[in-house]
This record gives sequence, structure tokens and C-alpha cells, in this order.
Amino acid sequence: MSTLEESGEERLIGKLFRPIAKHWGALGLKDDAALLTPLTGHDLVLTVDAIVEGVHFFPDDAADLVARKALRVNLSDLAAKGAEPAGALLSLAVSDSASEQWLESFARGLGEDCSQFHCPLLGGDTTRTPGPVTISITAFGAVPTGGMVRRDGGRAGDAIVVTGTIGDSALGLLLRRERIRPGFANLSRANREHLTDRYLLPRPRTALAQALRDNASAAIDISDGLVGDVGKLAAVSGLSARIDARRVPLSAAALAVVTAEPAQLQTVLTGGDDYEIVAAVPHNRLARFEAQAGEAGLALTTIGRMEEGEGVEVTGRDGKPLSLPRASFSHF
Amino acid sequence: MSTLEESGEERLIGKLFRPIAKHWGALGLKDDAALLTPLTGHDLVLTVDAIVEGVHFFPDDAADLVARKALRVNLSDLAAKGAEPAGALLSLAVSDSASEQWLESFARGLGEDCSQFHCPLLGGDTTRTPGPVTISITAFGAVPTGGMVRRDGGRAGDAIVVTGTIGDSALGLLLRRERIRPGFANLSRANREHLTDRYLLPRPRTALAQALRDNASAAIDISDGLVGDVGKLAAVSGLSARIDARRVPLSAAALAVVTAEPAQLQTVLTGGDDYEIVAAVPHNRLARFEAQAGEAGLALTTIGRMEEGEGVEVTGRDGKPLSLPRASFSHF
Repeated sequence: MSTLEESGEERLIGKLFRPIAKHWGALGLKDDAALLTPLTGHDLVLTVDAIVEGVHFFPDDAADLVARKALRVNLSDLAAKGAEPAGALLSLAVSDSASEQWLESFARGLGEDCSQFHCPLLGGDTTRTPGPVTISITAFGAVPTGGMVRRDGGRAGDAIVVTGTIGDSALGLLLRRERIRPGFANLSRANREHLTDRYLLPRPRTALAQALRDNASAAIDISDGLVGDVGKLAAVSGLSARIDARRVPLSAAALAVVTAEPAQLQTVLTGGDDYEIVAAVPHNRLARFEAQAGEAGLALTTIGRMEEGEGVEVTGRDGKPLSLPRASFSHF
Repeated sequence: MSTLEESGEERLIGKLFRPIAKHWGALGLKDDAALLTPLTGHDLVLTVDAIVEGVHFFPDDAADLVARKALRVNLSDLAAKGAEPAGALLSLAVSDSASEQWLESFARGLGEDCSQFHCPLLGGDTTRTPGPVTISITAFGAVPTGGMVRRDGGRAGDAIVVTGTIGDSALGLLLRRERIRPGFANLSRANREHLTDRYLLPRPRTALAQALRDNASAAIDISDGLVGDVGKLAAVSGLSARIDARRVPLSAAALAVVTAEPAQLQTVLTGGDDYEIVAAVPHNRLARFEAQAGEAGLALTTIGRMEEGEGVEVTGRDGKPLSLPRASFSHF
């Protein structure tokens, strides 16, 4: 009689991931696949995003934050589409040298966010890699049939509205890379921490899903920079966009940096990793959109509008047209 | 007016992947997410599997075959669960040095298999990595509600039935790594090619889905080795399994290797990457299962049965119990 030893992968899955995969559809992570019974009268919204060590996060970032970022960038996509999270699958490639401690912290962070965002972990795959840690998460969301908020629904005259504040994450990344810059010289400790934190941990605006479905003609989450992503929103709708940089909402920390080093406005407008949502909203829906967002605890700011034509025109803080050499960030 | 240049990623997606993402739910790859309208009265079966360069495939493997393998290992999971493919998402991390030629070949292979297996590419994510090419595919399948073939449904007395032939892929991998072995010394060119081909390109048994739903009490696809995977099937069903190695179906090529080097039987039984399906089937369903499989063009072989108890007992080619030091393959 051969006794079957559990493989390392099974032991690891059992110990770390089974406790956080409590949804019935995960089948205790004891099957080849997971099960999802779709809500009647709903479409499924599907998204996948990968983050790679050394590209999207630093090797010394805390593992629990890495896991949460990997999930949250996907939750941000679902939120922008007006979808309510329904579940996620994890694909995790780690090196042989990954410590059990790192993996424990990773699983703990993932489990916390799956609970917080009501997005159950349904299954996944773990494998060894000789390269950087690579985490790919697939997230599923539900919207009433036909109700997904698309990119291409914008109409001329729509207000361009953003959640939260813009540029914190990109400045946080810059601060991480170059501590000595004019913009950072007199930055308070609290402001530094704010920027760093926003880089490390996106805040997906899942609470906005219903308000977007009810009011937005089009939406996108800002991952590649405000100007570039507004440009995508306008382009697929066959329109142009006009953004007033004076109205782009800045945190106290970002304002302090831009005041001390005005050239950093470009980082704010094009840096990316905001994971805020930018939506095109008809004017007669604006009050209701703001009210619903307020009930969900989210601040909205109108920063411009959609117009006929093509391209993005940005008015700078001096009231003059701003020329941006690089409209968006791409890892490619 | 800033003109927005398409980023490298968008250009690449547009050129290579948009032409193969023709399903309406892919939204032309121009949105943050894809849409899937689930079939009424069906559950969705979800699976994700990653393959990593240098771990699951060789750096010089043809890109189109790498893409097809990445999809097929997932289609194999769907098939084992009795699910009909409904769509897939691609997460692709490639190095800066990846040539456009490699990427074109990759996209072409993926597109061909998406068509062949009626599994539309619905979306994805591409990113740069400083490490090995890493491909994670999430596949969705549909089964009538409650109809997924699970791992844990086996019953004592069920026949253990496999599709196709066992061990070809593991021997193909060994042949790739160690060309000089007793088992390979007199192997014909055709037999070498058969083994190599089966390693490079799995044959997911998607045609068996209906027959499995109709007849199997439990099933799993063989990715980590026959004995280990039968062991998992038995263990989650609270049973033991008895396998007769003399009945395990071998290709002419595998038979030639095992005849020349009997120790290679262990590679056959535990090597993995077969992507055949092993099912537990009640005896009164066996004839119907075989008939339906035959109509689908698939050969089935009964290799043992499920029994009370635990563990896996393998009878060797000499009729005596076979002791296997390593029952299955794990990348961990």
C-alpha cells in the first residue's frame, strides 16, 4: 500500500488558503475548479490584472499589502463598471526562497480584503517561479443584465467627475524612489506617510457601483494616469475631453508637493495608480450622482467635460493650456 | 491640445489580441472588463492555471505551442468537471526582450485554440516582467445547475476509468532532458516524436464533458501523475483506490520505453502532465459511459476500482504490489 504524501503545494494551500476560502463555491479548495451560481437577471463582469515584483511593487513591500493591492486593482475595475464583487481567483507564482512567513502574511492580507470587500476567494493556482513574485487575480462581479457601465457611453456635454484625490499614489512612488526633490524637502511626516500609503494600498471605490450604474454614461478606473485614462474614455466614445487642472482634487500632501515644485503637477495628472474612478455624467444626473456618492461616503469633483472632437485639452493652474509630454503611464 | 499616443501595451493588444477576441463579451478589448451573460439554469465552473518559462515549458519551446498549452491545461480542468467552455481571460507577463515575432506567434496559437475549443478569449492583461514568461489563464465553463462533476463523489465499487494513454508526456519531458537512457536507446523517430509532442501539447478531453456529467460519480484531470491524482480522487471521497498497472493504457512509444527500461513504469504512473481524465464510474453506468465516449471519439480503459479504506494500491506488471517512492509530481 503506497501512502500518499500531500505535496508541498497541497500542504501550503491547506494551511494558508483554505481558511480564507470559506465560500461554498470554493469547494474547500479540494477540487480542480470552483463553482459560481450566477444571480438570475445579472451579467458577470470579468477582469484580470497581474502585479509583478520589481515592476508593480517593491521586493520589500509587506506581503499582506502586496496581496491586498493585487486584489484591489481588480476590485477597482469592477467598481468602475458598476459591478458588485462576486468572487476572485488567485494565481500566485513565488520563488523557492519565499518564506512561509511571507506566504502567511500574503494569505492573511488577502483574506482580510476578501472579507472587507465581500469578494470571496473561490480558488486559485500556486506555482514556483525562478523569477519575481507574480500575482494575477481574476475578479468576477455582478451587474443587472445590460447594466454594466462601459467606457464607450460618454456623450458630448457630459461632466467629467472623479472620486477622491488624484496623484497621491504617483507622488508616493516618486517619494519612494527619490527622497531628495524640491517638492519633498519640506513635506511633513504625515504628508509623506499619506503619499506612501496611497501608493502601497489602493482604495477601490466599490461603494460607488450603484451610483455609477444609476447615473454615469461611461466610466473607467484611473490606473494609467488621469489624463491618459480620460483620453481613453473620450476616444472610445468618439469624443474629446477638456480638463481643468485647477479643479483636479488634490490631497493636502499632493498640494504641498505641487506648491513647492510646480512641475510635479505632471506627475499628479499622468502618474497613474490612483485607482479612483473617472466618470462621464449627464448634467441632469449630476446632483443625484453626488447625492448617492455622498450617501456612500465618497467625495466627487467635477473636473471638466466631454466635447465633440478628439484628444484631451488640459487647462493648467495658470489658466493656460498645459502641454503634457507623456499623457499616461504604461508598463509596456 | 495634447495628442494622446497609444501606449505600447494598447498598440500590442490592438494588433495581436483584438483580432482573436471576436466574442461580443470581449467588448473589442476596449474596456476595463469583459462581460459574460451566464446561460439560464447553469452554474459557472471557474479554473485558473499558470505556466512559467523554465518550470512548465522550455525557453525555446515555440510560442504558439506555449500559448496553446497554457489554455489547454485549463480546458482539461473544465472537461474533468463536465463543463462546456464558455470563455477565457489571459494574464501574460513577458520580458522587455520578448520579440514581436514571439508575441505574434503566441497570439496566433492562442487564437487557433480558442476557435478550436469554442472557448472565446474575453479579455486579459499584459505586463512586463524582469523574469521568466509567466502565463496565467482563467477559464470559465458552463454546467447545468448542480451538474458539475466533483472530485468527492466517488463510491466504493466504482470502476476507475481513464481516457487515452498514460505517461507519454512525462516520458516526453524526460526525453527532452536526458536523451541518453536505456529506455530511449532504440526508440524509433516516430515514437520519439510522439512523446515529445504529447509533452508540448496536451489534448484536453473536452469531448468527454457530457458523458462525464451523465455517468461519472467523480473525476479529475491527470496533471500531477496518475497515481497521485487517483489518490486525491479517492481521498476526498473517503475511499481507497486499487490500480492494476497492467491495465494502464500505454501508447506504442511508452510501451517501447517501459519494455526497454522497466523502471520507467514509475515515470508513466507518477510523472504527470497527462491531461487525460480519470473518473470513478458506477458499474451500471460503465457501458453507457463507454458508448458515449466512443461517439465522442475517445478511448476509455478501466484500470481499477474504488474501495473502502484509504491510500492507493498499485499492482505492478509482474502482478505483485508496486511500491512507488513518489506518487505524484508537484512544482512545490
